[in-house]
Amino acid sequence: MHESGSRHGRRSAAWLAATALALGAAGCGPQGGQELQPSGAAQNGAATAELMKQRGLTESDVVAALKTYTPTGVHDPYYIFASGGHSGQVIVIGLPSMRILKVIAVFTPEPWQGYGYGDQTEAMIGSSDQENGIPLRWADVHHPALSELAGDYDGKFLFVNDKANARLAVIDLEDFTTIQIVRGGLIKSDHGATFVTPNTEYVIETSQYAAPLGGTYVPIEQYNEKYRGATILWKFDREKRRLVKEESFAIELPPYGQDLADAGKLASDGFFFINSFNTERAWGGSSEGNPPLESGASQNDMDFLHVIDWKKAEQVVAAGKTETIAGMRVIPLETAVAEGILHLIPEPKSPHGVDVAPNGRDIVVAGKLDTHATVYTIEKIQAAIAAKKYAGKDDYGVPILPFEDTIRGQVEIGLGPLHTQYDDKGNAYTSIFLESAVAKWNLADLKLISKIPVHYNVGHITTPEGDTVSPDGGYLVAMNKWAIDRFQDVGPLLPQNFQLIDTTSEPMQLLYDLPIPNGEPHYSQTIKADKVKAISVYSPIGTDPATRSVSPNAVEAGKERIERRADGVHVFMTAVRSHFVPDVIRVREGDTVHIHLTNTEQAKDATHGFAIADFNVNVSIEPGEHSEITFVASKPGVFPLYCTEFCSALHLEMAGYLLVEPKS
Amino acid sequence: MHESGSRHGRRSAAWLAATALALGAAGCGPQGGQELQPSGAAQNGAATAELMKQRGLTESDVVAALKTYTPTGVHDPYYIFASGGHSGQVIVIGLPSMRILKVIAVFTPEPWQGYGYGDQTEAMIGSSDQENGIPLRWADVHHPALSELAGDYDGKFLFVNDKANARLAVIDLEDFTTIQIVRGGLIKSDHGATFVTPNTEYVIETSQYAAPLGGTYVPIEQYNEKYRGATILWKFDREKRRLVKEESFAIELPPYGQDLADAGKLASDGFFFINSFNTERAWGGSSEGNPPLESGASQNDMDFLHVIDWKKAEQVVAAGKTETIAGMRVIPLETAVAEGILHLIPEPKSPHGVDVAPNGRDIVVAGKLDTHATVYTIEKIQAAIAAKKYAGKDDYGVPILPFEDTIRGQVEIGLGPLHTQYDDKGNAYTSIFLESAVAKWNLADLKLISKIPVHYNVGHITTPEGDTVSPDGGYLVAMNKWAIDRFQDVGPLLPQNFQLIDTTSEPMQLLYDLPIPNGEPHYSQTIKADKVKAISVYSPIGTDPATRSVSPNAVEAGKERIERRADGVHVFMTAVRSHFVPDVIRVREGDTVHIHLTNTEQAKDATHGFAIADFNVNVSIEPGEHSEITFVASKPGVFPLYCTEFCSALHLEMAGYLLVEPKS
Repeated sequence: MHESGSRHGRRSAAWLAATALALGAAGCGPQGGQELQPSGAAQNGAATAELMKQRGLTESDVVAALKTYTPTGVHDPYYIFASGGHSGQVIVIGLPSMRILKVIAVFTPEPWQGYGYGDQTEAMIGSSDQENGIPLRWADVHHPALSELAGDYDGKFLFVNDKANARLAVIDLEDFTTIQIVRGGLIKSDHGATFVTPNTEYVIETSQYAAPLGGTYVPIEQYNEKYRGATILWKFDREKRRLVKEESFAIELPPYGQDLADAGKLASDGFFFINSFNTERAWGGSSEGNPPLESGASQNDMDFLHVIDWKKAEQVVAAGKTETIAGMRVIPLETAVAEGILHLIPEPKSPHGVDVAPNGRDIVVAGKLDTHATVYTIEKIQAAIAAKKYAGKDDYGVPILPFEDTIRGQVEIGLGPLHTQYDDKGNAYTSIFLESAVAKWNLADLKLISKIPVHYNVGHITTPEGDTVSPDGGYLVAMNKWAIDRFQDVGPLLPQNFQLIDTTSEPMQLLYDLPIPNGEPHYSQTIKADKVKAISVYSPIGTDPATRSVSPNAVEAGKERIERRADGVHVFMTAVRSHFVPDVIRVREGDTVHIHLTNTEQAKDATHGFAIADFNVNVSIEPGEHSEITFVASKPGVFPLYCTEFCSALHLEMAGYLLVEPKS
Repeated sequence: MHESGSRHGRRSAAWLAATALALGAAGCGPQGGQELQPSGAAQNGAATAELMKQRGLTESDVVAALKTYTPTGVHDPYYIFASGGHSGQVIVIGLPSMRILKVIAVFTPEPWQGYGYGDQTEAMIGSSDQENGIPLRWADVHHPALSELAGDYDGKFLFVNDKANARLAVIDLEDFTTIQIVRGGLIKSDHGATFVTPNTEYVIETSQYAAPLGGTYVPIEQYNEKYRGATILWKFDREKRRLVKEESFAIELPPYGQDLADAGKLASDGFFFINSFNTERAWGGSSEGNPPLESGASQNDMDFLHVIDWKKAEQVVAAGKTETIAGMRVIPLETAVAEGILHLIPEPKSPHGVDVAPNGRDIVVAGKLDTHATVYTIEKIQAAIAAKKYAGKDDYGVPILPFEDTIRGQVEIGLGPLHTQYDDKGNAYTSIFLESAVAKWNLADLKLISKIPVHYNVGHITTPEGDTVSPDGGYLVAMNKWAIDRFQDVGPLLPQNFQLIDTTSEPMQLLYDLPIPNGEPHYSQTIKADKVKAISVYSPIGTDPATRSVSPNAVEAGKERIERRADGVHVFMTAVRSHFVPDVIRVREGDTVHIHLTNTEQAKDATHGFAIADFNVNVSIEPGEHSEITFVASKPGVFPLYCTEFCSALHLEMAGYLLVEPKS
């Protein structure tokens, strides 16, 4: 049990003694009068000191250990839902234990969950294949948004975006599975997604890199004239658990690089806010005599905060003042201006996060090439709009509200502010990328309180319910992009580093480093665990997770059968510890095989798998679940089939054969 | 910061007092004489007690926390390499912190690593597409095997199997990437893989579910006559970092369900051992009047341990006494018998693990429908072979050595023993599935020492270097198949549960529960971290990880260009913080686009990504890496391209456009 590492033990004798005094006041001294405890207990105490020495733990490490260590069977009070970046998935983490509890398959095939290897999930993952013309089997997931009621997480749904291909997905938190993937076809990338309005009326998806709307080709030299941004308000139907394109609409935007967004709440309900970072409208062309995008897009000291009145936009849509592009109703830019839906406000250089405070009044912008967090207020914005107090208009005729008249103030926090979250004490926390630090500052008096270094290159941060109307406080997780030396090497591609910070102490204390081993989270949301009501089994038996109702093909025990029909061989099969019925499938080369498979178990954790050699088939069938598998028996041979999820002592024996007789 | 969970705090006043006494002896009493420490330190001590109360931690929890908590920047002394089950990947974990450090993409597409989304990795993942006729994009990874020298891990390579499709993969531990996937074409499933001989001369792959060798169709009614098992000895060429099919060979086996294997070492070097569980030769047919496989395969009280003399087999192969099936040299079963290569020994009911002890003499078999660990010795086996002391022959003429003459003894450990590992004190540890426990027993005197419950349904276990000639001892990880109530719910599909156990204390102590969120590990190996020499960057710049040499298409800064050739448009591109050169690519609809992309960085962790909207392209380019991307610009339009790995403050600006002009 040796230990390697970069730190030396710094156990302080002073602290040990003090700990002893604090814990043991009753055990010594003249007033004590108690018997010494049995040696077993005394040895435990000595073991603690010895352990600290052996493992080089400081007093602060011990406190951190005790604040995070979560014994067997104890449940974390919070879930963190983290985007998986270009893994295309979502990562679920328990807080404060910082253990990854599940990876939810969303846009990328994931065979452990059988995701993309059976009919229903293949259809899900291929939702946009037809529209796109090219199958998409990955995504760049950036910003998860939990569904809300009255500006507070309700624990029902999670939305995520695919920045790379401008898609959204809906995850049901009853079973932690993806239930919908949509693509509007209007825009080509969507970094500014997903964000929900306070009652999840809409899920906001905003383009990042401007392109001709609807996907047509236009030479890039016509960037200013023909390339556009857009923000889509996807209507969410809770009852149907669906984003409904027909009830959704978009607003055309200038070809600025729209970035993050946030919906107003309370005083600012009815508005949402979008940052932008390339109001210069650079488009690269570094080999063609232009500056590269990174410098072309960083010329202006101010970019534009977009202020959008979505309730007004709803009325304009209802009045039919839209064009239809790629099947989506779009409010043209000039209509948005004419109707007062869209205003711009200058914001400090190349901002990243725009984060509405719990009070709904303050809107905090972090300018990533700036040193400030800038606080706008909705009252001042509304007053300027009402007074038509403009600092001018942009090239597209959009009115610009004056910076000085809309802000409440600025806080100097350090170089490279990125993203802000809140606690229950009126504090704001802003990540600072270039400094690799997180700043804590007071929202009321705009005073910096303290900073804590993080390791390294922090992007977003999350605090418990920290972007709702009622944050919990207590913790903060810094989502650090680089890990460098924090963990032992695992080749050139390193994990990200989530650092858990205790925000209740002053200075703040670093508690835990969690390597993220399978993705690059951009943003996370942290929700009280008791708000999420996850089911343990699908009930009644035969439930199709895609429809959440009993499948017409569900199979009852005793009614298993194989039928040859015009469209192929139909196998009605059950799975139960530890056999499939039937377990031998006889078909002819070229047959289409339809397997209708029901796991008839109702015990928690009694999952089975079903795989067939050579045919790229593997489903995970949870207790009560019904699964559909279709494939063509395109070659003759003998193919073992078996349960892929270790289910019992006779798991290895839960097997059978697919026999494909050759064409004569 | 509230806490939910199933346990109540059981902080004992006695323990606290004793801890205080142990830590604070110098701080009180007449002999102490020291000043009280400053209040800050005293508050820390009080904080510890308060924390235990708040979080319901027992004294044993505190010890466990201190034995596992690993502060920021401290590196774990061990890596655990765990198979990912039907995720198709490998999971790398630090011990004792029990943090997942990386998921290595092996058989399944993984876009965070760009694995399967660029030319080189697409070729890797599609290695068996042509042979199989159907693209395989998942696997069922069961048993990782670290490369060995003289029976000890050398930290160079990791081998894993795909049970579902009978494939093997090689992972290079310099860069933690997959460098080869092979499929022999001889067998249809390979649960008994991978296991290496003591100098990694061979990697052993054994079939599980019998089938006609080479993949032909034979009616299952001819199971006894025409279905067979086989074990393949894949020759590993260290220099070339390749399994070489031409230098490999197989041995035909009876159609028993061959299960786990292990290579002999020291005294038993030259042999390897394979379990089996269906010597009844049941094949299911439950809907056709037969018993289901699970009962058909569980009739006999004894199955067969296969004893294989691979050094003799090498000679037989050298002498040309092989047949060639599916391009693989195969020693026919009757030749294996005639040449004394294969012997059987009865072994208790439906065994799972066969594990050669560090001494090389003892071979421990765990009969999963039995209650014993059974210890065979190589001396007795060799003596019986030499004396031709047979208890009979099986239906295929394979001589059966007598059970009583080949065992040294048995240890009664509990119902459902599965798998055995070793420590440095002469102890063996066996997982017990049905009891959900791990037994510690003494190998020398075959005495049970103690058991510890685990949660729940333990499969394999791993101890540090525990299956080598020199185990380290200290820890054990129980790989539990079910988690049930250990973590908060995440829908019907639950994580597995890795439980870390301290084996140095008696009774053993449970230290930590690690949920496995993305796969179903079957076996792990645990290696000293300092044996693994991972690189941080690819050097020189332009290295192709597939060949580990500079790509002929590597691009130097300043020599970027776009060339139209007969086979399409070639883009020679570099990536460096924070731009691509070139950043605008102009092609015509239908063009094949070849992007030759070099990351010219040499800073650790300076990874870039490269994605193009709509074309399912995403690569991860580590510092110094060269990547190849080929696709057809099959539709016109304007497609943003950008860096998918957050690399700098101007990461969002590291972007450009692919412009596809429509056919006129």
